[in-house]
Amino acid sequence: MNKISTFQEVINSKIEKIKIAGKPEELYDPINYILSLKSKRVRPILSLLSFSLFEEDLDKIKGPSIALEFFHNFTLIHDDIMDNADMRRGKVTIHKKWDQNIGILSGDLLMIFAYKMLEDIEEESFNKTFKRFNNIAIKVCEGQQYDMNFETKNQISEEEYLSMITLKTAVLIGFSLELGGLIANQQKKINEKLYNAGEKIGISFQLMDDYLDVFGSAEFGKKIGGDISSNKKTYLIIKLLEKANPVDRNNILKLMNNNSYDENKIKFITDMMIKYKIDKISKDKMNSFFNDGIDILNDIPGNKKSIKNLKNYFEKIKERNY
Amino acid sequence: MNKISTFQEVINSKIEKIKIAGKPEELYDPINYILSLKSKRVRPILSLLSFSLFEEDLDKIKGPSIALEFFHNFTLIHDDIMDNADMRRGKVTIHKKWDQNIGILSGDLLMIFAYKMLEDIEEESFNKTFKRFNNIAIKVCEGQQYDMNFETKNQISEEEYLSMITLKTAVLIGFSLELGGLIANQQKKINEKLYNAGEKIGISFQLMDDYLDVFGSAEFGKKIGGDISSNKKTYLIIKLLEKANPVDRNNILKLMNNNSYDENKIKFITDMMIKYKIDKISKDKMNSFFNDGIDILNDIPGNKKSIKNLKNYFEKIKERNY
Repeated sequence: MNKISTFQEVINSKIEKIKIAGKPEELYDPINYILSLKSKRVRPILSLLSFSLFEEDLDKIKGPSIALEFFHNFTLIHDDIMDNADMRRGKVTIHKKWDQNIGILSGDLLMIFAYKMLEDIEEESFNKTFKRFNNIAIKVCEGQQYDMNFETKNQISEEEYLSMITLKTAVLIGFSLELGGLIANQQKKINEKLYNAGEKIGISFQLMDDYLDVFGSAEFGKKIGGDISSNKKTYLIIKLLEKANPVDRNNILKLMNNNSYDENKIKFITDMMIKYKIDKISKDKMNSFFNDGIDILNDIPGNKKSIKNLKNYFEKIKERNY
Repeated sequence: MNKISTFQEVINSKIEKIKIAGKPEELYDPINYILSLKSKRVRPILSLLSFSLFEEDLDKIKGPSIALEFFHNFTLIHDDIMDNADMRRGKVTIHKKWDQNIGILSGDLLMIFAYKMLEDIEEESFNKTFKRFNNIAIKVCEGQQYDMNFETKNQISEEEYLSMITLKTAVLIGFSLELGGLIANQQKKINEKLYNAGEKIGISFQLMDDYLDVFGSAEFGKKIGGDISSNKKTYLIIKLLEKANPVDRNNILKLMNNNSYDENKIKFITDMMIKYKIDKISKDKMNSFFNDGIDILNDIPGNKKSIKNLKNYFEKIKERNY
């Protein structure tokens, strides 16, 4: 068993041990349902890997790392309601399996349980961790609101888009690394580097999601072209609309008025992306963020072997090979 | 200006000073909207009054007391979505004025800001306050779920009802008093008494709400008979169904199948309540909880004048004279 599977085990058994149980069951069942769905536990694993840069005994980081998983799952429950999503991790979403009110309330409760996981942080690191957690949580909400705003906004610049995915996705990846430093009581400078590395890499992962939705293969489990079909304003579409000549641009925009699944529309827009080299542009952007993040990591003091483990894990995620 | 208006001022200016501001405005405007609605600020005032039992300078309690107001308002935003309510404090609810997604997300954000208000609690009281806050927050969610469950449940016992309103309403009133003791770093025994007093009185306030909805006068701003009209399972209805003879009970249940506003239905059920002395039974129950709470308060050491202020405030709320 490699390091990552070991860490996954550690996290799953910790979640098992915490046992979010209580009554009424209408409130607790959905939480246990979503936590039991197949998940890579990326955020807590990043915390464990980051903590391992400085300390060997993982005991102190386990609880706080679960806060990230709980918080992330809380956002999934509420985002799925807002997006009216039917499926999550291959299973029916909570608000569809139960109902919307239960989705709202069990999400609320899971957020409280995320905070509860911070209770046992040692005094010396508690206050700064708590403050950072609050600020990160605020940013994630802001990101989700920007994402919703973009749905009805006609023109979104590359800068606006990058800022949105930073808030919605990358800050929590950044904080996952930072948490390891905070709990290992590292200097502010080091914790900032951990955060910055994670944020950059988090952005690259979202850009990769956008890319794979058009150019990936079906094995990633998502229907290819889903973003195009639903007119989602991804990095690829934003760059395409920026680069296309007026005639092509008009044709693309016309197709984007149509909301139903349409093979021809997906093919046309994908071809346009290839014509304007959007695949290459996206990959370059993605690699640039990824490499910036890795460069920052290389600059962090700590156990060399652990740094390597962390970089390997990021590479694995990047290659979707895990 | 009396003590309570002074405290209200203190709290309102603290909320003003905190200034929950940020972008996107779709997320922050609703929060500032609900916080600006006319509110008595009962929970933070209770914390200030309770803290005054032990210390004079209110500086330490101001921030944490606002956490209660923020948390309470977060529950209002989400409850209003779940109840599909149009109005709150005489104004349009957030999910109606904006939309449901904004209601969900601005509620989430306000809960995070509630936690943020705990950031500056001194080290010696922080951990126990944080743990209690988490546990109280969990109970409030549980109470809301029970309340929703009761909507579709046919028979609810008095015990089940009292347990639901304890969770949904009274625990936060209890914690409002306890918070004063926690921040003034009082012994566990005292903090427990504060909590228990507040919980009892909180239950009495909810029983009073139920009572006034049927037997109150229009000046309380609510349409009289609203609970009867919407077939809400209040303490009065539960007791009525328990006491009524089979014929009356059947007639009441028949009327409760009808969901629309109906003057005759309200009159019939109100008359039935009078016939079975439900008005008196409710008032007695309410007074019994209230007096139990006051008895516990009388047993708490602390500045005599402040104890009197606290009791006066409870009396004022009880008489709806504030």
